[in-house]
Amino acid sequence: MEKPKTSAKPFILLVNDDGIYAPGLAALAKEIRKIGEVFIVAPASEQSAVGHAITLLSPLRVWPFYKNGEFFGYAVSGTPADCVKIAYWALLEEKKPDLVISGINHGSNTGINVIYSGTASAATEGTILGIPSFAISIATYEEVDFSFAARFARKLATIVLEKGLPPRTFLNVNIPPVPEEEIRGVAITRQGMAVYREKFDRRVDPHKKTYYWLTGHKINLEKEPPDADDVAIMQNKISITPIHYDLTNYEALNELKEWKFEL
Amino acid sequence: MEKPKTSAKPFILLVNDDGIYAPGLAALAKEIRKIGEVFIVAPASEQSAVGHAITLLSPLRVWPFYKNGEFFGYAVSGTPADCVKIAYWALLEEKKPDLVISGINHGSNTGINVIYSGTASAATEGTILGIPSFAISIATYEEVDFSFAARFARKLATIVLEKGLPPRTFLNVNIPPVPEEEIRGVAITRQGMAVYREKFDRRVDPHKKTYYWLTGHKINLEKEPPDADDVAIMQNKISITPIHYDLTNYEALNELKEWKFEL
Repeated sequence: MEKPKTSAKPFILLVNDDGIYAPGLAALAKEIRKIGEVFIVAPASEQSAVGHAITLLSPLRVWPFYKNGEFFGYAVSGTPADCVKIAYWALLEEKKPDLVISGINHGSNTGINVIYSGTASAATEGTILGIPSFAISIATYEEVDFSFAARFARKLATIVLEKGLPPRTFLNVNIPPVPEEEIRGVAITRQGMAVYREKFDRRVDPHKKTYYWLTGHKINLEKEPPDADDVAIMQNKISITPIHYDLTNYEALNELKEWKFEL
Repeated sequence: MEKPKTSAKPFILLVNDDGIYAPGLAALAKEIRKIGEVFIVAPASEQSAVGHAITLLSPLRVWPFYKNGEFFGYAVSGTPADCVKIAYWALLEEKKPDLVISGINHGSNTGINVIYSGTASAATEGTILGIPSFAISIATYEEVDFSFAARFARKLATIVLEKGLPPRTFLNVNIPPVPEEEIRGVAITRQGMAVYREKFDRRVDPHKKTYYWLTGHKINLEKEPPDADDVAIMQNKISITPIHYDLTNYEALNELKEWKFEL
């Protein structure tokens, strides 16, 4: 276990992909301030499905963001991964975070969505920097109350600060969108593999030009293994998946070594 | 092995992240046309380090792109992953690709870069759609001749069309940037884990506003295991890494099951 250096008051970086205005971030900040010193760096605008993008081809801007007349955090003209990088390498000096929390995302980050998730990418970025990190999402796009998820994030933060996390691994947490009394515990899960049936809506703009808009829904959810993240959510359990960024398929290595390449 | 359906003449989708004008894509197309029917869908502009982004918040535009008076392929106002999705779900009808090739990228996609790589994301997207796929890059940002890499891509395409690939797995290929006679064979590798020492250049624009620009270089390459992708490149070997998109850290699952969560 990589144990974080905990000071008397842990220093916790909050980030998200819904943008600095998002209510999920506000709810998270409110709870996490009870256990630590909070530093917020979040995208200036919504960044859904940006994947693990970083901004190389253009510069980044940073603006202080105030809420009810008080400094809340920094808004960045970039992606969630940019936010973590710029916090660590530019906005913070000697003092580095003990923990990175990304969220609370409005919408699930389960199964194949993890690879498109800006929320997950911020936690990956924290992990690459050697900081224990987790991503947290509520599994619905409907209007939602973030308060239970925020309290669970606080509880999990306390546990992670105490125990640390396995090397190069972050936790991807999804909260079922049900009232607190209907939640049936915590499941340690694996990333599900259900894919999308996708469709592009073909439309015509006011200037008579064609454009396309991606839509889709997950299929074959009923074929998921019982320990998949999406299955836990369907059972009203909190899903926690340990995620790493070593994408090597080790099982395939030996098979490929049999191939003959004549150069 | 998932075997592709090979017709007499295989139907091969080409995509990249350097954009439809890129010489690496042109070199690839020229070679792959010798073994199959080629269909090209590529970003209208360079998309470096877009990660596995898909465009949900805005519409996509598609334009036919001509080269020397002949139809070359479709340019898309999106990311490499968008290109594969829109090719599969909108531009192609009944006839689906037997193979997806992403590249030839100008710049290495080894180690941690794989998670930021648009080139890799297009191959992932092909794999999610059940199509054998590979990504191919030349490991330099210097001026380079793509012809050897293109010929290797053709050879590899022939092998993959014959043998198929392990389920849910694509090949991430990196070519060392040396003359053909200095290449010392093919190594089946794993994704390296060397990280970047990063820095944000802090600059002031002509209007006296501050902006930041990310720079960095990989450190600790000498600590990589001997079978890492970056090590193969340093030894002038072609690196082929089997990559999957199940990000679960299975080793960490049991450890986490010991944790107590009191809800």
